[in-house]
Amino acid sequence: MDITTKLLLNTEVTRRVLVAFLRRELTRFGFERAVLGLSGGVDSSLSCFLAAEAMGAENVLALFMPYRTSAAEGAEDAQRVIEITGVSSKSVDIAPMLDPYLEQHPQMSNVQRGNLMARMRMIVLYDHSVSWNGLVVGTSNKTELLLGYGTLFGDMASAVNPLGDLYKTQLRQMARAVGVPEAIVLKPPSAELWAGQTDEGELGFTYAEVDELLYLLVDERYAPEEAVAAGFEAQFVDTVIRRIRTAQFKRMLPVIAKVSRRDVGHDFLYPRDWGT
Amino acid sequence: MDITTKLLLNTEVTRRVLVAFLRRELTRFGFERAVLGLSGGVDSSLSCFLAAEAMGAENVLALFMPYRTSAAEGAEDAQRVIEITGVSSKSVDIAPMLDPYLEQHPQMSNVQRGNLMARMRMIVLYDHSVSWNGLVVGTSNKTELLLGYGTLFGDMASAVNPLGDLYKTQLRQMARAVGVPEAIVLKPPSAELWAGQTDEGELGFTYAEVDELLYLLVDERYAPEEAVAAGFEAQFVDTVIRRIRTAQFKRMLPVIAKVSRRDVGHDFLYPRDWGT
Repeated sequence: MDITTKLLLNTEVTRRVLVAFLRRELTRFGFERAVLGLSGGVDSSLSCFLAAEAMGAENVLALFMPYRTSAAEGAEDAQRVIEITGVSSKSVDIAPMLDPYLEQHPQMSNVQRGNLMARMRMIVLYDHSVSWNGLVVGTSNKTELLLGYGTLFGDMASAVNPLGDLYKTQLRQMARAVGVPEAIVLKPPSAELWAGQTDEGELGFTYAEVDELLYLLVDERYAPEEAVAAGFEAQFVDTVIRRIRTAQFKRMLPVIAKVSRRDVGHDFLYPRDWGT
Repeated sequence: MDITTKLLLNTEVTRRVLVAFLRRELTRFGFERAVLGLSGGVDSSLSCFLAAEAMGAENVLALFMPYRTSAAEGAEDAQRVIEITGVSSKSVDIAPMLDPYLEQHPQMSNVQRGNLMARMRMIVLYDHSVSWNGLVVGTSNKTELLLGYGTLFGDMASAVNPLGDLYKTQLRQMARAVGVPEAIVLKPPSAELWAGQTDEGELGFTYAEVDELLYLLVDERYAPEEAVAAGFEAQFVDTVIRRIRTAQFKRMLPVIAKVSRRDVGHDFLYPRDWGT
């Protein structure tokens, strides 16, 4: 099977689906406005373009939330997206909130620090969801969700997520199609926890490689040995499956102890638009 | 139907179920330790007692996270629970993180302020989940979850929640049964956003009243008009149903736009213990 071809999207159809999704999900609950975190990376840039198209640029607030480890390039790229799309924007430095805690916990690992940054941004975003009166539009893609490469209750937190079913390589294709500047599409993805950090350096493989494997394992339901037969190294397959399983808790609601005949999360779990 | 009697728990059985639930859910993922936020209220006190019984007091970290609006009584009550149960504890003042943001946003409503406090505590709790190497044990009860009286990604965030299927009145019964001091069981529940705030004052009804109605609507699947026929005021029934529906988004995962044959949240949603 030519997996690369399988991953190619019909960008016109997908764009219509994603824009209609955002408009439907927001308006169904009486919202006309959206708010999102914009880092200047390709994911949040694409979310911003889609939200602006769905709701009208004047109804979208893009929050740029730098920390001192954020690259200057991010600010410039975010600014370009804001100018092209015409959305409203605001910059909120998270350092004043983050630093008091970091100073009290000097032993913190990079992962802990990254989680703190992502969650602090969630706090600012959700606070602005109230003041802007808009729903939070997510920016997590399918590759990140499957690998657990994101922070629970941080960047993974949103009300509606137009990108969650797009692999990173598909997301780049979509970004090009809607007009995200090529420099943003091409720059190496980074969580910007320290200078020079890249997603692919930290993960130990490229998005191009892992997206093809994830497509076989998830979309095509290949067994591990079938993925190996299709040409992937056994150890790579094993690593990726382990990551998917370990990250499962990030894709679930908190587990509640059931003691009654009908409890939240098991029996009492209506569709989101129940009865409204 | 005598609803009050229906809400009465067999506390011995329920205690065994909840303790076994915590032990099973934590150990199944290789964890031996738990961490929780302890305010000195009845909910978090009960979670603390249950976690200590399930994992051993030495494996439980109770985090007390005051803000300047927190009542002095809370600190004393939390300290009593820590002494009785013998769990480890730590106090982290959230003011240094919160105040820089509050000062920049002086127009903030009480609800926004409350959400910020709850989410800041989540950040501290989840950071200690890493350093303590324990899972976060939740403290949201069934009444709060159904009414949406809690902060999404704040106090509603946890890995495992032993209280989520107990109505507030049932939770008080359980708290007494496991040895939570009577003063804690009896004090008026409060989110402590301002001096003198009480849950029941803010909600506009008592837990005793609403728990009986929720029991009929949710556990017994009464239609609204059946609840009215059972003796509840039509307007109260309407208010409560409206709250349940409005809060639905707090009991769901972010909604993802489905574009592939198999996406996270629709088709790809395995049980939490998938394949481990």
